[in-house]
Amino acid sequence: MNFIRALRQRWQRNNTLVCVGLDPEPAKFPAHLRDRPDAVFEFCRAIVDATADAACAFKPQIAHFAALGAEDALFRLIAHVHLAHPGLPVILDSKRGDIGSTANNYAIEAFDRYGADAVTVNPYLGRDSAQPFLDHADKGVVVLCRTSNPGSGEFQDLLADGRPLYQHVAQRVAHEWNANGNCLLVVGATWPAELAQVRALAGNLPFLVPGVGAQGGDVEAVVKNGATRDGTGLVISSSRAILYAGDGPDFADAAGNAAHELRDQINRYR
Amino acid sequence: MNFIRALRQRWQRNNTLVCVGLDPEPAKFPAHLRDRPDAVFEFCRAIVDATADAACAFKPQIAHFAALGAEDALFRLIAHVHLAHPGLPVILDSKRGDIGSTANNYAIEAFDRYGADAVTVNPYLGRDSAQPFLDHADKGVVVLCRTSNPGSGEFQDLLADGRPLYQHVAQRVAHEWNANGNCLLVVGATWPAELAQVRALAGNLPFLVPGVGAQGGDVEAVVKNGATRDGTGLVISSSRAILYAGDGPDFADAAGNAAHELRDQINRYR
Repeated sequence: MNFIRALRQRWQRNNTLVCVGLDPEPAKFPAHLRDRPDAVFEFCRAIVDATADAACAFKPQIAHFAALGAEDALFRLIAHVHLAHPGLPVILDSKRGDIGSTANNYAIEAFDRYGADAVTVNPYLGRDSAQPFLDHADKGVVVLCRTSNPGSGEFQDLLADGRPLYQHVAQRVAHEWNANGNCLLVVGATWPAELAQVRALAGNLPFLVPGVGAQGGDVEAVVKNGATRDGTGLVISSSRAILYAGDGPDFADAAGNAAHELRDQINRYR
Repeated sequence: MNFIRALRQRWQRNNTLVCVGLDPEPAKFPAHLRDRPDAVFEFCRAIVDATADAACAFKPQIAHFAALGAEDALFRLIAHVHLAHPGLPVILDSKRGDIGSTANNYAIEAFDRYGADAVTVNPYLGRDSAQPFLDHADKGVVVLCRTSNPGSGEFQDLLADGRPLYQHVAQRVAHEWNANGNCLLVVGATWPAELAQVRALAGNLPFLVPGVGAQGGDVEAVVKNGATRDGTGLVISSSRAILYAGDGPDFADAAGNAAHELRDQINRYR
């Protein structure tokens, strides 16, 4: 699958900008699942199946699997998405970044080992560190720009030539790193003014926007400040507010409802 | 073990600033090992045992293990270092960085799952993203500052308030993030002038210096520009030039010789 094409198809045919973040935390699983030997996979698979028709992408966060030693569950989960929901792309959220020879191994990890369709990367090391990802023209390369955390401005807001660092990143990624047309930028929903600034610099580049839901980002401001003219251009990611919407036997239905509500809420402002 | 204390002990008692980088690439393994089922572990263990007395630290690079699905070999390798070479610290080179709740899972990955004594982290997201690592006062937090790759200047050299970004990182890490006394900075051997600038800003903070050997960094310039007044302060990392010094049955001896030569070469300039 070509990631950007798959994303656009989901935006249009399924009329949704919602990305479901898969951050498994066994302590929050419903009691009937918690002690099962394959709980991480079973929980995530149930969420995937309940939310797929409201989603334009899934975003498993690799640290949550790594902390549990659950590499195998992550592999099977991504395979399940591809098999059960063809055309629905998977963004591996790993925020990798390293020098050339090592970055190539991270590209192998994301694309060959796990079969992800896109990966998040950190820009601090510069373009050559992202090149092994960028060279996979069919894969999405989602570059951190203005992150959703409260302290993101410490370096990202430093002014160089009158412009904050995150805008330099946006400019370079949109106009240089994007030679294969496969780049996206991460801009947190918690920073609506910055989102508008990045949109002004980045043309129609798609944005991955975390931070609605548990982190408190405002959906209306995200859509008004971040969408492209055709009302798309956004991959609005919610994790905890969907995953843990319910904690009983019907947790998957609760997650499905939360994902559909977020889709509808977003669509009201498009 | 307290990482910084262990490092200082190795610098002094073993009189070495050499860090052996463990970047397994099976295609480069000696023929007699290549097809063995546990080749990654066996290769790395042989390197560890042959180089330990010339090393102040080991630095496994996690992407090389992740690309091979070799998490178990990485776990056993770190356990082997601790068991066979007590007091010799292990830096997990994973360059992690994410927002609070996720960063905590990366800290669990590095310190609880793998038992590493230190971890490399990316500063782009700001201090709150590093806090779960910094809070482990006994563990080392090795923050990217001026990386060794050719394109590292793309963002790291952007001038803010008349100073390049990497110097802002050095300043913040040395004087704010280092509240627990457990921070280090990464400065590439390929940038000797920048190394001197960072030393001027960072007091006696230890530096992890990759880029000698295969990447071409000059040892004399690294020691002259980077060492503290007592001739320490540096963790000079070499990977390929040690690991693949030989490719025959005596590969471990060749690696041991290469590590000892690098130690002696460094010590000539201290």
